[in-house]
Amino acid sequence: MAVQKHDVTASGSPDRLLALSDGIYAIAMTLLVLDVKVPEGLDEKAFRDAMGNLGPQVAAYGLSFYVLAAFWRDHRRLFLLVRRLDTSLLRLTMASLGAVALLPFPTALLADYPDEPAAVSLYATVIVVIVALHLAIAAMLWRREHLQAEPISDTLGRAVLRDLAATIIVFGLSVPIAWLSPTAAQWTWLRLIPAKIISGRGLRSAMRSSSTP
Amino acid sequence: MAVQKHDVTASGSPDRLLALSDGIYAIAMTLLVLDVKVPEGLDEKAFRDAMGNLGPQVAAYGLSFYVLAAFWRDHRRLFLLVRRLDTSLLRLTMASLGAVALLPFPTALLADYPDEPAAVSLYATVIVVIVALHLAIAAMLWRREHLQAEPISDTLGRAVLRDLAATIIVFGLSVPIAWLSPTAAQWTWLRLIPAKIISGRGLRSAMRSSSTP
Amino acid sequence: MAVQKHDVTASGSPDRLLALSDGIYAIAMTLLVLDVKVPEGLDEKAFRDAMGNLGPQVAAYGLSFYVLAAFWRDHRRLFLLVRRLDTSLLRLTMASLGAVALLPFPTALLADYPDEPAAVSLYATVIVVIVALHLAIAAMLWRREHLQAEPISDTLGRAVLRDLAATIIVFGLSVPIAWLSPTAAQWTWLRLIPAKIISGRGLRSAMRSSSTP
Amino acid sequence: MAVQKHDVTASGSPDRLLALSDGIYAIAMTLLVLDVKVPEGLDEKAFRDAMGNLGPQVAAYGLSFYVLAAFWRDHRRLFLLVRRLDTSLLRLTMASLGAVALLPFPTALLADYPDEPAAVSLYATVIVVIVALHLAIAAMLWRREHLQAEPISDTLGRAVLRDLAATIIVFGLSVPIAWLSPTAAQWTWLRLIPAKIISGRGLRSAMRSSSTP
Repeated sequence: MAVQKHDVTASGSPDRLLALSDGIYAIAMTLLVLDVKVPEGLDEKAFRDAMGNLGPQVAAYGLSFYVLAAFWRDHRRLFLLVRRLDTSLLRLTMASLGAVALLPFPTALLADYPDEPAAVSLYATVIVVIVALHLAIAAMLWRREHLQAEPISDTLGRAVLRDLAATIIVFGLSVPIAWLSPTAAQWTWLRLIPAKIISGRGLRSAMRSSSTP
Repeated sequence: MAVQKHDVTASGSPDRLLALSDGIYAIAMTLLVLDVKVPEGLDEKAFRDAMGNLGPQVAAYGLSFYVLAAFWRDHRRLFLLVRRLDTSLLRLTMASLGAVALLPFPTALLADYPDEPAAVSLYATVIVVIVALHLAIAAMLWRREHLQAEPISDTLGRAVLRDLAATIIVFGLSVPIAWLSPTAAQWTWLRLIPAKIISGRGLRSAMRSSSTP
Repeated sequence: MAVQKHDVTASGSPDRLLALSDGIYAIAMTLLVLDVKVPEGLDEKAFRDAMGNLGPQVAAYGLSFYVLAAFWRDHRRLFLLVRRLDTSLLRLTMASLGAVALLPFPTALLADYPDEPAAVSLYATVIVVIVALHLAIAAMLWRREHLQAEPISDTLGRAVLRDLAATIIVFGLSVPIAWLSPTAAQWTWLRLIPAKIISGRGLRSAMRSSSTP
Repeated sequence: MAVQKHDVTASGSPDRLLALSDGIYAIAMTLLVLDVKVPEGLDEKAFRDAMGNLGPQVAAYGLSFYVLAAFWRDHRRLFLLVRRLDTSLLRLTMASLGAVALLPFPTALLADYPDEPAAVSLYATVIVVIVALHLAIAAMLWRREHLQAEPISDTLGRAVLRDLAATIIVFGLSVPIAWLSPTAAQWTWLRLIPAKIISGRGLRSAMRSSSTP
């Protein structure tokens, strides 16, 4: 291992890509708050009404912050397995960051138009794109041993792909559902939280057993 | 110690979480300025009036920058004690960052509606949530020795919890006070500054004596 | 080499400049999304029209994210060759970051006024300025051996300059074209994508052979 | 030296403060662009007028980016001399970051109201506050040897203080001048550029001779 580690030239180091990624995630997570607002200069009654109507804005903020936090964790876990970058890995990562940086737009749309099928299905579509790109990164990494920080066992490889595929299926199914009932589509997403906790447990135990020599 | 340090696998390293945290704090602290503004195209008299009315905006900016700087210090101090992450620590930290990233919203509300009980009590509530999450992190860390960078003495553990609990009490008390008198609630907060300086001194001396072998 | 590496004083280390650069790129890439938006409170028909008209906004977001990602890659590649900073290198880098941070403005202009020659040519001009500054950094670095991380071969030096010069020519030519036909100018830019892929391949193979001892 | 370096406990390391500082500078530098804008939906003539009137916005962007870049350089130079933090150093640095994060506000004011004494003098005042805090950091560091990365010679200490004091004097004098003539005050600032280049040279030569053993 030590020998392998030392022959990584600086040109392949993922360090600056991780710094850029952490920056983009941090900004996307913080920009979400710009859509939670109450207009200036309202009288007392209008102010109370505006406060009472903040529900969808705050819910959209909470949902997107939670989603981005979960994606950041996936990103962190994936890159724990990366010893060096190649061009395809850099491109896939950049594409995933482009979708992450876009998320504040469908979030604002969802907060303002929670009953519009187009808003709900666009939100789900952007999520599916991000997770599909994470899945592509994971699949490529599994096949290219010279990029791996340590050998990726078949158990771990399969656990990672299964975890990401589950999210794609839930959010992917919600896209057509949104055109029938935007509310039903949003309830589907909540199904993911317990699913993620269970699959997260499976994933962590696979990572632990893989790091045992 | 050296042995302990070397067996931390990359998967437990808090490095990227600290980079994400520093990014979120930096952005939340800088976005606060977006609420300090004067409309374009005013005539001379209207411009002077607008400048004269900036007081609450600038005060809210200063207060929230000070508060976030104090929270960042608490976050930095807490993570000096962390050698490795586990899932609970990651989740509590993410939750605290979600509340930190939200703070620009109650700050804007406080600047625009300093006399509204709902604005003042929401601001205090977000602060209480952040500090309560920091307290939960501290309490969990104190109990889980395998996560600690070095053994946390009882003196230090108690000093940290006391420091955080004092802030929760002051801001927590200001929530009901805000519904009686928003102004009185804001005066309560100022009581915290000398209190923090005194408790900060106690905390620093506890940290020093704990780092002495 | 080892000896050379150890005599770099902290004062010449590019570390903090790279952290600042990654931050500015991450923010510029994420701020682009603020121009993709649908007004609040539209009725159903107006909402569908607004969604249908998002094309130019989303295209401008995608283009500028792609462009900034490509510039970040160039910046990363250039700084892989840098062992220490001097004042000229710091100034050129700061000037390039000033143009990068400005890019969200011509991007918004291009999204709102894709048929205006002034909008299209301003966009191309800012791109030319960024690439010209990267070229100046590369040329200066090639001549100043004491700043180099490892000796830059003539093959590599020429490949880097050729790659950057090609981008300058394509975007530079599009400036006068924009005054005749804004649409034609935008089509010119698309010519760059295959050109970049080919020159990128040449550049990578030059970097690989240069890092072989 | 090696011995001194190794006894720095993590609790005194300035690493995270530098990450927070780089983040705040990067965001403040990038937020400046939000004030350079042309309204959507103008007809051809109004669009050309709006483009023609961008001068003050672009000039204010350029000036503030230049000013923040120069402050970041001062901040980087100061912290090259810092081996460990104490509470006063942390507080002064946080106060300077609070003024840095505020700068986008007077920049927008200067772009919109370049002829208003209050706008011009507020801009100069914020600059004076930042530089005065940098001077306080430098003076404190010079006196507290246990915080220094290497002994600060009297030549270097005096050169740093002189450099910062010169900026304070120029911007400080422009505050009363602005009330007589806002334009004259802005011309005064341009005097600083050659002055900074000369004093920068003196400072760099002092830093070089101090790092020679």
